[in-house]
Amino acid sequence: MSLSPLGRVPTIRDVAAAAGVSIGTASKALNGRGKLRPETRERVLAAARQLGFRPNTLAQGLLSGRTYTVGLITSDSFGRFSIPVMLGAEDALGAGQISVFMCDTRDDPIRERHHLQTLLARRVDGILVTGRRTEPRPSIGTELPVPVVYAMTQSTDPSDFSVIPDDFGGGQLATRHLLAMGRRRIGHITGPERFQAARLRADGMRQVLAEAGYEIAGGGPLFGEWSEEWGRQGVDILLRAEPRIDAVFCGSDQIARGVAEILRERGRRIPDDVALVGFDNWEAMAVGCRPPLTTVDMNLGEVGRVAAEHLLAAIAGNASGGGVKAIPCQLVVRESTGPVSPRAN
Amino acid sequence: MSLSPLGRVPTIRDVAAAAGVSIGTASKALNGRGKLRPETRERVLAAARQLGFRPNTLAQGLLSGRTYTVGLITSDSFGRFSIPVMLGAEDALGAGQISVFMCDTRDDPIRERHHLQTLLARRVDGILVTGRRTEPRPSIGTELPVPVVYAMTQSTDPSDFSVIPDDFGGGQLATRHLLAMGRRRIGHITGPERFQAARLRADGMRQVLAEAGYEIAGGGPLFGEWSEEWGRQGVDILLRAEPRIDAVFCGSDQIARGVAEILRERGRRIPDDVALVGFDNWEAMAVGCRPPLTTVDMNLGEVGRVAAEHLLAAIAGNASGGGVKAIPCQLVVRESTGPVSPRAN
Repeated sequence: MSLSPLGRVPTIRDVAAAAGVSIGTASKALNGRGKLRPETRERVLAAARQLGFRPNTLAQGLLSGRTYTVGLITSDSFGRFSIPVMLGAEDALGAGQISVFMCDTRDDPIRERHHLQTLLARRVDGILVTGRRTEPRPSIGTELPVPVVYAMTQSTDPSDFSVIPDDFGGGQLATRHLLAMGRRRIGHITGPERFQAARLRADGMRQVLAEAGYEIAGGGPLFGEWSEEWGRQGVDILLRAEPRIDAVFCGSDQIARGVAEILRERGRRIPDDVALVGFDNWEAMAVGCRPPLTTVDMNLGEVGRVAAEHLLAAIAGNASGGGVKAIPCQLVVRESTGPVSPRAN
Repeated sequence: MSLSPLGRVPTIRDVAAAAGVSIGTASKALNGRGKLRPETRERVLAAARQLGFRPNTLAQGLLSGRTYTVGLITSDSFGRFSIPVMLGAEDALGAGQISVFMCDTRDDPIRERHHLQTLLARRVDGILVTGRRTEPRPSIGTELPVPVVYAMTQSTDPSDFSVIPDDFGGGQLATRHLLAMGRRRIGHITGPERFQAARLRADGMRQVLAEAGYEIAGGGPLFGEWSEEWGRQGVDILLRAEPRIDAVFCGSDQIARGVAEILRERGRRIPDDVALVGFDNWEAMAVGCRPPLTTVDMNLGEVGRVAAEHLLAAIAGNASGGGVKAIPCQLVVRESTGPVSPRAN
């Protein structure tokens, strides 16, 4: 791609020379400011087009007081959870011609502070903070000169605004689906109880079951780790506690993978004998499962988009105030759930 | 975090007022330019510290002709391959106080062009281009006003500089390890033959086997898909072609997961009867495997770091010229490989 007939980045000086006007006149014409004769303005714009001149965004930033940049700070090393959030945010920001500085703190407060200082020195218009978990985290700062919105993580400061997935609703969705498929003895194998997400998903499940007159099979949720290995262990514990289970709702797709593997080895057919639902809709895990996994998608792209829209509104002077907004999850149905098989009844 | 005793972003005007000097004097002191008495300079710097004044990076950029920003363009939606590359690049660039604009093209040439224009308008010092595959791609532009380096993807234009993982060497590593473990009938199940990475890994394997007097078991590499499902299918094809295989080298960890599952179902113990090596060192896949998977790590962080260092050198005026640099892979040994079991012989 040739950038300019000049063979280098054209400057406003080149445009002025080509149009036969002063630099001041060229500047007025390009910025749409000041009084100029229409033909002069047109001559400058034609010269700019011909030379491939692009206004210097830096200089514009100094003039307008806005830089049309936003900082994205993540503690997740841009991992599985923060990336979809980031892509959703990029969609919303890109539509507003805003570029995104990415800053990875790797969960290190010193790196976080350094990135924050750098972003402020670069005069970003606002900051998005994202993470790998929905756990509340300390505010990145309450007296910052630019608006901040949290996505997929939440600030402990009630004056900050956070957008997170609705884990409680996700647990409800999965459970309603299993009930609709005729399942009644539904176990729950999930991550560590110290995770708010694990507790909320279990609570959502419990509430839907209670309304239908049921309880979590096997005596309650089995809290453990976010791993396949725990899924393999947990399902054996569950089968001992309640051998007649007809469904398992898992707190993550990785756990569900381990559960699927052991159910198969124990001769339980999925979904005929036991239906299986995961959480995350982690494509590679869910589709690679035998059979492919029904799972709860957290709509992380939407989490990012909504957070970015709130940030844009705050930049424009319409801050949301403090609070937490939960984005609904969505059930993705694959082969691991189905109606109770006639043979199984 | 309170930014300033003023309750807003302090300007050079505030610093000058606090130090009792003119704005011009404050500027000289802060930029280390011009002649000033040491005590004046010290008074300005003290005032700046006290007010939490940070020089405006935008204004500095206009003065120095450098913005200390770099654009990172990816076609991978910041996926599994581009993220480690990006983190490595961020390490190298961050050390040079450079901030990174992220631009996701989602494999769309129109988005790519838009991002490129935006980055140039923002006067980035250089551009990194990364992708999800090592396949050659069209140059992003050969007459750009800033240097460009490709990472984890390569430009078809020989005047561009690209940094990619050494897939051929990765195939060699895996095969040498299996030979050292006493394996002799080694099959290869991998991705589509149209992928350069799949061909190079198979070539590396073939060369090491040939030097030791062996061939790929089962009549040659089984090219298929980059999926678990293909691993499950491929290993049955391989077992029919050569029932006595004692090892399988897989072109990806996902393929290896499918192979492991079926080997277990066919009563073949891993690693006692059949050793298994994957490719990618995709942590969740490799560690979740039963048993955990020995695999080839492409050192993508190093790919990103080296690419960023070449970009920094080019920005400083020391361009590398065109060419492709291959970064060595690394074997990560877990339980799926081991010496041939005494029982198995």
